[in-house]
Amino acid sequence: MAVYTDVSDDELDDFVAEYAIGEVVSCKGIAEGVENSNFLLVTTRGNHILTIYEKRVRPDDLPFFIALLEHLARGGIACPTPVHGQDGQALRRLGGKPAAIVSFLDGVWVRRPRAEHCIQVGEALARLHLAGQDFRMRRQNDLSVTGWLKLFEASERLADGVEPGLRAGIAAELITLARDWPRDLPRGVIHADLFPDNVFFRGETLSGLIDFYFACTDFFAYDLAVTMNAWCFEPDGAFNVTKARGFLTAYQAVRKLSDAEIAALPLLARGASVRFLLTRLYDWLNRVEGALVRPKDPLEYWRKLRFHQRVAGPQEYGLS
Amino acid sequence: MAVYTDVSDDELDDFVAEYAIGEVVSCKGIAEGVENSNFLLVTTRGNHILTIYEKRVRPDDLPFFIALLEHLARGGIACPTPVHGQDGQALRRLGGKPAAIVSFLDGVWVRRPRAEHCIQVGEALARLHLAGQDFRMRRQNDLSVTGWLKLFEASERLADGVEPGLRAGIAAELITLARDWPRDLPRGVIHADLFPDNVFFRGETLSGLIDFYFACTDFFAYDLAVTMNAWCFEPDGAFNVTKARGFLTAYQAVRKLSDAEIAALPLLARGASVRFLLTRLYDWLNRVEGALVRPKDPLEYWRKLRFHQRVAGPQEYGLS
Repeated sequence: MAVYTDVSDDELDDFVAEYAIGEVVSCKGIAEGVENSNFLLVTTRGNHILTIYEKRVRPDDLPFFIALLEHLARGGIACPTPVHGQDGQALRRLGGKPAAIVSFLDGVWVRRPRAEHCIQVGEALARLHLAGQDFRMRRQNDLSVTGWLKLFEASERLADGVEPGLRAGIAAELITLARDWPRDLPRGVIHADLFPDNVFFRGETLSGLIDFYFACTDFFAYDLAVTMNAWCFEPDGAFNVTKARGFLTAYQAVRKLSDAEIAALPLLARGASVRFLLTRLYDWLNRVEGALVRPKDPLEYWRKLRFHQRVAGPQEYGLS
Repeated sequence: MAVYTDVSDDELDDFVAEYAIGEVVSCKGIAEGVENSNFLLVTTRGNHILTIYEKRVRPDDLPFFIALLEHLARGGIACPTPVHGQDGQALRRLGGKPAAIVSFLDGVWVRRPRAEHCIQVGEALARLHLAGQDFRMRRQNDLSVTGWLKLFEASERLADGVEPGLRAGIAAELITLARDWPRDLPRGVIHADLFPDNVFFRGETLSGLIDFYFACTDFFAYDLAVTMNAWCFEPDGAFNVTKARGFLTAYQAVRKLSDAEIAALPLLARGASVRFLLTRLYDWLNRVEGALVRPKDPLEYWRKLRFHQRVAGPQEYGLS
């Protein structure tokens, strides 16, 4: 939960006057999202989301994100659509920071996903990958192998204080990943952070995807691994093969995986585990007293990594 | 900012089904409010506020708060109105805690109040006091003289660590307040916490009052003192007599103060300063590492107390 920037009523009125969305009726900070400040902005024309981009998002990346959301929305993906100002611009400044208004997306996120949800997420992820294929802009994945090495260097000294053996365990894994990471799988725009709190459902039906601020150009199958990690483990750490089978089968019904993608899945899942293990470990070691965001448990992803290290092959994910 | 209770989508659907407000479209935690968890609940029939009452609100007090909001709304005060379930109940349970849905109130709160805002707040406060006069329920003010003594006992040992001399200063003030506190001023329902973030404006016009969870039965003039303290000091600590004059004059245009009320104002303003000094001091000394709420500065109210101690009489508040 996070609202880092307080917006005065005067600033807000001036900002909203740049758009053709009526007048401000209400604006409330939303206790969700870690990277940016989000507000539910009610105007005389309806509900919108106002996002102020905070320091974790690079200003240079914003045109990519805004253009991507527009491209995906045009391609039929239910995602927030940027609202353009009367000058045509979707991106402007508020409170001294970059800011944008996007459409309000119906739905609530599912706290305890069941197999039915995983199936719909698999289908939506495949549709997202297909819809992004003709998007021309590129954004490198900063949180892939090279980025992991940097994150590890920033945390390794204190890693064993979190869990004995963590330092050596991650170091060995990074060597394997750097050596074996695939170079030529199908690639395109990936979400890269499709956790349950980024997927909305209306009743039992998936209604939208949000939070594209880690989106980048990378292997589709890596996105599959990230998403499987986020949806197909139980709270006690057990891998739920029924959920994974549903997720992967639904994905393949829309976009068939190549043999190379399937073969790479266990290693990609290890990399996807290391990615969240390392960012969580960094946030854990650098948490600030009195911070507004509770750091997430890095060891959840250490346990996921160890599961994938022991997997004999992709068939253990329920692939037939 | 605070959301202490996470509500699952299933729990929420079941809860909302008890009401005739349509189906859940969206539910987002609001990053406002310290005492309770608040959610902006969008249903197919519109926007609502869902409040889950946390431990700082006594369950025994909830019927008073709910009945008060209904009474005030009927009396023409723009405040959240409780929504009744199909069984007639406005108060039920969600996530194991008491919860209620109230109407959504338009407006945003003013970050930098000007005299025009203070004038409207004075008028609204007087209307609130009049509208509450025929409300039959009573609730004792736990945060009056006796409550202050208890809060002081819980904090005095560490007070000088916050500011040298604070302990003796508060102790001397409490003796004066206990001795001189008025016994027979006009009384009724007071808001007791009418800070800028509890008053909404649409454009330049006051559109509503929220957060009645400190409301109680006490002197009207004490409420005036609390509100004057909250609205009529500048960020640098200076008392703004223009704002105070506008505030008090607008109040009196609706509800005339008696001579006794006017004469008591400086002492009531000292008590109102001590009340927030002590609760903030307690929260400051008992803040939790990693807490989601930043404690407010107790010394802001220490400085306000010292201002009121030096006041020669109520005319210094701009009363003619």
